[in-house]
This record gives sequence, structure tokens and C-alpha cells, in this order.
Amino acid sequence: MVDSWATSASRQALGIDLHIEPTGSGLRRGLTDALREAVRSGRLAPGTRLPSSRTLAVDLGIARNTVADSYADLVAEGWLTARQGSGTRVAERPVEAPRPPRAPARRTPGPLRHDLEPGSPDLASFPRAEWLKAARRALSAAPNDALGYGDPRGRPELRTALAGYLARARGVHADPDRIVICAGFVHALRLLGEVLHRRGVRDIAVESYGLDAHWDILTRTGLRTHPLPLDDLGTNTAELEACPGPPPPARHARTPTNPLTALSPPGPSHPSASPPAPSPAPSPSRLPAVGAALLTPAHQFPIGVPLHPDRRAAVVDWARRTDSLILEDDYDGEFRYDRQPVGALQGLDPDRVVYLGTASKSLAPGLRLGWMVLPESVVQEVADAKGPSDWSCGVLDQLTLAEFLHSGAYDRHLRSARLRYRRRRDQLVEALAERAPTVRATGIAAGLHAVLQLPPGTEQSVVRAAAWQSLGVTGLSTYRHPGAVLSVPRPDALVVGYGTPADHAWAGALDALCRVLP
Amino acid sequence: MVDSWATSASRQALGIDLHIEPTGSGLRRGLTDALREAVRSGRLAPGTRLPSSRTLAVDLGIARNTVADSYADLVAEGWLTARQGSGTRVAERPVEAPRPPRAPARRTPGPLRHDLEPGSPDLASFPRAEWLKAARRALSAAPNDALGYGDPRGRPELRTALAGYLARARGVHADPDRIVICAGFVHALRLLGEVLHRRGVRDIAVESYGLDAHWDILTRTGLRTHPLPLDDLGTNTAELEACPGPPPPARHARTPTNPLTALSPPGPSHPSASPPAPSPAPSPSRLPAVGAALLTPAHQFPIGVPLHPDRRAAVVDWARRTDSLILEDDYDGEFRYDRQPVGALQGLDPDRVVYLGTASKSLAPGLRLGWMVLPESVVQEVADAKGPSDWSCGVLDQLTLAEFLHSGAYDRHLRSARLRYRRRRDQLVEALAERAPTVRATGIAAGLHAVLQLPPGTEQSVVRAAAWQSLGVTGLSTYRHPGAVLSVPRPDALVVGYGTPADHAWAGALDALCRVLP
Repeated sequence: MVDSWATSASRQALGIDLHIEPTGSGLRRGLTDALREAVRSGRLAPGTRLPSSRTLAVDLGIARNTVADSYADLVAEGWLTARQGSGTRVAERPVEAPRPPRAPARRTPGPLRHDLEPGSPDLASFPRAEWLKAARRALSAAPNDALGYGDPRGRPELRTALAGYLARARGVHADPDRIVICAGFVHALRLLGEVLHRRGVRDIAVESYGLDAHWDILTRTGLRTHPLPLDDLGTNTAELEACPGPPPPARHARTPTNPLTALSPPGPSHPSASPPAPSPAPSPSRLPAVGAALLTPAHQFPIGVPLHPDRRAAVVDWARRTDSLILEDDYDGEFRYDRQPVGALQGLDPDRVVYLGTASKSLAPGLRLGWMVLPESVVQEVADAKGPSDWSCGVLDQLTLAEFLHSGAYDRHLRSARLRYRRRRDQLVEALAERAPTVRATGIAAGLHAVLQLPPGTEQSVVRAAAWQSLGVTGLSTYRHPGAVLSVPRPDALVVGYGTPADHAWAGALDALCRVLP
Repeated sequence: MVDSWATSASRQALGIDLHIEPTGSGLRRGLTDALREAVRSGRLAPGTRLPSSRTLAVDLGIARNTVADSYADLVAEGWLTARQGSGTRVAERPVEAPRPPRAPARRTPGPLRHDLEPGSPDLASFPRAEWLKAARRALSAAPNDALGYGDPRGRPELRTALAGYLARARGVHADPDRIVICAGFVHALRLLGEVLHRRGVRDIAVESYGLDAHWDILTRTGLRTHPLPLDDLGTNTAELEACPGPPPPARHARTPTNPLTALSPPGPSHPSASPPAPSPAPSPSRLPAVGAALLTPAHQFPIGVPLHPDRRAAVVDWARRTDSLILEDDYDGEFRYDRQPVGALQGLDPDRVVYLGTASKSLAPGLRLGWMVLPESVVQEVADAKGPSDWSCGVLDQLTLAEFLHSGAYDRHLRSARLRYRRRRDQLVEALAERAPTVRATGIAAGLHAVLQLPPGTEQSVVRAAAWQSLGVTGLSTYRHPGAVLSVPRPDALVVGYGTPADHAWAGALDALCRVLP
């Protein structure tokens, strides 16, 4: 008998673990029964490799022959198989196979033949070899304590690399100390929603078109979402400007079509501000005093226009005047094909704008990496919401992305992806001109998707025709906020993600698209 | 003038991005001013590499000479440097250096000379080369769509590999469909707290000793934590058994010392159960009708004893009778040094016990990978809490861990780590016997930490002496719940994490420890 099951020689380290508790009388009998039961009940799946008899004997503190005999019994009974070189395994039997995983709760891609759903880049072009090279360099260089619990804001290597990159490429006023790494945009939104709620904010302005998943997250954190009107220039921020607050809006003489009577401006100075009283006749074009606004200034999702320059200035003005925060969702700011790059709104006022970026469009959603550049007054609050819950992201991917940025591989990947996506966009526009001349593509100066304007009243029928062809596209109405305020005719349109298909699938997807268009 | 800044030849893909908006009159002057301002304001940090004049010219749609002249002006002014082979960079200047990152909000390791804080494995022994090998194999084999948004429960490859491993090594009744991957234990606890709260549970039993971070998370999700008493057998579950519910507790004749008058048992059948009325004279030894219990059955943290076999059965009985859930925190179940492995409580009733495991002790906390094995009735609720917020973990680490498990590298790593930690534990016990014979080490049958029993009243002075020596250890009282119920004398003890130091630092840490002991 060995004193303890781990006292074995270091070559024991080559074994594998098996939890088994021999039962009943007699060691051999007890072990055999326990093993048989583990196989019969399905706990040990067919094909599972068992430890060698020597290893298990040491682990259980019994004689090796006892284990070998027990294995032999079960091989004879057909529960196990023993083959030279592959050891002892649980026999394959016609047992109930594990059920296939259920489809995810929300996004069910289904067996689409042609996937033009917006929201995903071309996953086939993920730079696997470059990424692995960066991972090797990053992990080799990492100090041991990088593998520990660490800073809830994320690894300093990545925050420093991002600060440099965002300042250079997106005009963001960045400082590694004010960057927090998170698991993608929705994680950031959840944290910011919690922070806003704790500050007493109960209402947030959003755009009339966007992703319901984002509004849901804000709602879960206790905020009400109020859409800003959409007009022919894009999102109209006039209603924000009309929010009361000292001094009255003077710089921008734009007359709001709906002068608002809102209540006290919420913000840090009113941490326990009572929720705004219901207005006597709530109308969808009226905003309560919101304490924050979520915008996609570089490339409105999904409409595709940038926020008008006058409105950029005006919304920052509003935030200063009312002590509010702007959440800038820069989801695809890296992909602009026109000559005039749209810099980040955050550069106008880093103390009022939270810049939100993600690797989901530039690299792959599966990385689950995003970043926030925060006003100094917000950093600690976000870290406090995140830290105790310890939802930092895996450090290995963080270190790898830092190396990827540092070595220039990120820039190279982006520039090559940009050329490829631009080619697709041009092919889309050409194909439409030739095969569906009544359909106009808009919002194509940037990003990975286009909005195809359809003849009025045809959106639903086109979406149905596409579904019939197993072509994944989305009707624009899917993205309309329930309280959307439109000062333009309600548009009928398709949102087409031309970044999604792999290169070899693109031509077929484009052809299928043209066939379902009027 | 070029039509669009992305129309360039594919070699343009080798450039880097720079966001710059020329201002004022004259192209050269405007560009120079904008670049100078970007450097002066600190947006472009010293050392930042600028795009080649050719790349920037194409990007801005202006003549290459204009950019080259502008660069030359700024080099002459000292804002930029140009060196053959390293391109044009922002000059190093005596500017305000970016502040060093602030210390993380909660865990401040500080400059310890000897780190024996519990909670972390030896990070120096993280199997970097093996992990990179697995990462290469995993990423090479992954289908493209693995890089997409995916299932909120995590990658099927990892769930399948874990199901096999946990069944074999920990006696868990596992099924890939009932496993949810998360970002470590605290993330799991947060999700489960939300699910319990949504089910109407307001009270949860915890142990008298544990981590306040865990209690905090439960409190944040709206649950009240109630400690179970600690006696000389460990956590006493008798108070749970005494909770009312049909049928009355018969199987275990244990007479509770404090018969309880609790309210209706919460659970799925009482989704909106009103919170229990305050008992007339609340006493710390009385529990309200809790709907869940958080336990560390294999190795109580930090006391170190396993849950007594009778109590294991009793607590499962209680959960069945009252339709409650047990959360089994199996944080270091892989590290047992005695002959009798303690299997997972979950094996006793997979429909009542949530099994919670983590890679933080077996590999490294920085991976941020944990897993839950859930009762079938809870899977969808957890996925719903997690999915819309999309806090999945990075798929690359998930795929790598799956490969690590599949190839046997995980078993090999664990077995070799186990031998190493066991050697340290033995050295600790020997050193104590020799140099501090009044101090007894307990809880050492398993895990990565030991509890050193001190003479009554000496805990604080020993902790202070350790701090003086820059030796990180923790007094046991740090882990006591504010409402702890002890039927034993309040123990004075140190909690010593012998897994934490690197191999080369271990002997010094052990020596420093012996020097501060009485």
C-alpha cells in the first residue's frame, strides 16, 4: 500500500485522472462494479481513455494486479476495449448519443445558402497565421504576473497600444489610463448602463434606427430609451439641444420643430434626481431630460450616413451644457472608402464623449474584445462596475492584440480588408445599376453594409423572396425603434452586409441578391 | 487628385492609417498645421510612426510632394524625425509622460518580497509552450464560423471536452448541452445570482468563512447571504435541513439546535414570492427560507476540510425537499494529495446541484475561463442572462483549452503540478514541525493553501509581523462572514497560499514565514 496517491514517481505525471470510488465487498469486485456503473450510466462516454492500470493503482492506493484484473473483467464483459498502443478505453456501444447543442438563444444563422446579414466581417479572412505569430511573440514576452488576476481595466500593454493607434488612426484623444478593455461593445454598454443608472440617469437618447439588442441592454440596466428623430440629414439632434439647461442654447440657431419642456438635467450633480414626471400628453417627438445619448456618428447604423458636422458640434454643446455623456459607438470607423475620413466625435470633447470601439468588425467577433476610452471622471466608476465582477477578458488575446497593433500587423490587415470590401461595394453598386436599376444603394461611403432603397411598400415581399432563396438579408424596418420619430417618409429598404460572405461565396450571394430585387 | 483614398494599388495595404484633417488656407500649410497640432497636443505620442508620404498622399487625395514638403517642414521644426529605414516618426520630446496605470481597484499585490497570499497557482509554471502548440492546432482546425458571434453557452468543442473530463476526473454527471462557459467563477456567480433573483429567491445560504468578493456579487444581484454555522466537522448543514417543506426531514435524525420558523420555500413555483417577513428577534443562528446554498464541498475555502459525508447527503436532501439549488464551488478539486479523492457533490443529484469549475487554479487566472454544469431546468435561464449581453469568452482560448483537454496535455499538466504542490506542502509541514512546533497546519489534504493554527489572540500580531517583512499572508479572520456562526472557539490562524510563489522563490518565502511565526 502506498502512503498517498500522489507520492508516485514523477513519471506518474504522465498519467490521466479518473475519479472512481470502489464499492461493496472485495477490492477487485468493488472496483469492477464501480467502473461498470460509470460506463453503464454514461458518466464515462464511449471512447474515453482510462488511466493505465499502474497509474490507477497508485492513485487508489491498491495493487496494480487488482486494477489489471478488473480491467480484464470489463473487457471480457464488453464494457471496455484494450488495444496495444492505445490503452484501455470505454467501448463504443449503441448508447444514446449526446444531443447536438441547441441553437443559440438570439442569433440563429440557420443554414443560409447566401449570407448577406449585416454585422459580421468576412470570417474567412481572419489573419490566422499572423495572429498565431503575434500570440507566440506576446506569450513569450509576457511576465509571469500577466497571467494572474490583474487590473480590471485590462492589460497595460494593450491599453498603451490602443491609445497610440486610436489617436493616430481615429483622432481619439486617448490615454492608456482612461482605456478599459471589455468583451465587445455590448459588454461595454452594459457596464456604462449600470454606471449611468448609479449616477441617477433614467433616460437615454438613442437613434431612431439601431439594434434592438442594444436597447434591450440599456433597458435591463434600468434606462428608458428615447429615439431622436431621423430626417434627410440623418439623426437630428435638435431635440437634445432644446433640453433646458444654463445657459440656453445660443450658439446654434437651429429652431427645433418641437420645443421641449423637460425637467432638471440629471448628472453627477444630481445623483438621486427624481425620475422625470410624466409629461401631460406624452408624444413620441418629445424627450424627457435625458442624461446620455448613444450615437453612431461616423456611420449611422444601419442608415449609413455620418452625423452632420453641425450636429456633431451641437450634440457636444448639449452634453457640456447639461453635464451629460455621449456614448460614441464607432463600430466600423476603420472602414471608410471615401476621401474624407470621419474622425471620432470624442476628439471634440474627451470629457463628455465615451469612445467605444471593437475588434468584432476589424478582426472577428469571436475574439470578444472591445475598448472604451472614458472621461477621467468615469474611469473609476466603470472599473468599479467591472472589477469586483472580474469580467476581464483573457489576457492572452489582449497581449496578442497589443503585439498585433505594435508590429503594424493590425494596420496591414485593415488596409487589405478595406481594399477587398471596397471592391465588393463597387461590384454591388455596378450589379444594381445593371440588373435592378430602380434600386439605389445608400450609406456606402463607409462600413460593411449598404442600404438598398426599395420602391415603397415592397420591403416585406423582397425579404420573403430572399428567405425563399435562402438568402440572408434584413429589412430596414427590423432596425426601427418602436418609438422612432421620422420626419421623412418611412423608408422601405434592405440592409445588405457585403462584408459577411467569404470571397468564394461573394459572387453567388450578389447574384442571388439581384434575383430577388424588383 | 485621386477619386477615392482607397483606390490605391494593393501595395497600399502595407501602409498605416493616420487620421488628420488639414485646416486653413493652402494644402501644405493646412497639413503642416494639423500635423503640428496633433503632435503638440499629445494626440500623436513621441515615437509614433507616421505613414509614408506616398501612403498619406493617397489617403488624403493630395499630391505626394505636398506631404513630403510638410513632413520636411516639421522635421526642420523638430516635431518629427526622419531616419533612413525607420521612416518618419514623432520626435521624442520632454513632454509629460503618460501616467503609469493606477493600481487595480481591489487586488493590490504591492511590492511583496514573498507572496504567500492564497488564491493563485504558480504562474511561472503555466505551460506556455504546450499552450501555444494547442493554440496552433486549435486555430488551424477551427471552422471559419467559430470566429463569429456564436452560442452564448460557449464553443461546443470545449463543452464536449469538458463533459468528458469532468465525468472522468471529478465524477460530475456532465452533458455538453448543460455546460455553459464563462469568464471565471465570479462571472458564473453573477449570472446565477441574477437567475436566482429572477426566480424569486431573495436569500442564499453561504459558509461562515469564504471570500467577501463572492458575497458582494450575490448582494449586488439582490440576494441576502446567510452563513451556515461552522463546527468541528466543518460547515454544518443542519440549519438547512430544519427548513420546513414537505415531507418533514425524516432521513436524518439530526436535531437542529435552532429549530427555525421560516416562510414558504422559494423556487420556480414561487417566482414572485414575497420576501420573508423579518423574524421577530433575528438571531445570527437562524436562517430564513433560503432558496439556494453556495458551498465548497470538496475543500472548504479557506478552512480546508471537505464537507462531511453525512452532510453531503443531507444538503442534497434539503435541496430536493425544498426545490432549492446548491452551487458547488469546486475551485481546486483537481488538487488532492490524499488517497481518498472527494468526488463532486453534483454527482449525487445533477438536477439540484450546479457544478462550478475554473481554469484559474489549474492553469492561470488570466485565462478568464470557467464553466458551469447546470440542471436542465436552469440552462436556458443562464443562457438568457448571458446571451443578450453576449459575454461569451474569446473563442480562441476556448478552442485551445478544448484541444488541451483532448490531447491529454491538461491531465499531464495537472499531475505534474500536483506533485510539485504536494512537495511544497510537505516541506511546509516539515518546516513548521522543526521551526514553529506550536503551529499546526490544517486543511492540507488538498488544494493550494494551508491554514496555520496560531495560539489564541496572536493572529493580528503575526499578520503585522509578516507585513513588516513584506511577506504576503492573510489572517483567517479576513475571510469570516459578518454574520458568521461559530460553534467552535473563534480560530486564530493564517491562511498560506503555498501554490503562489515561483519555484525559485518558494524556499525564501517558507523561511520568511517561519521567521514571523511564534
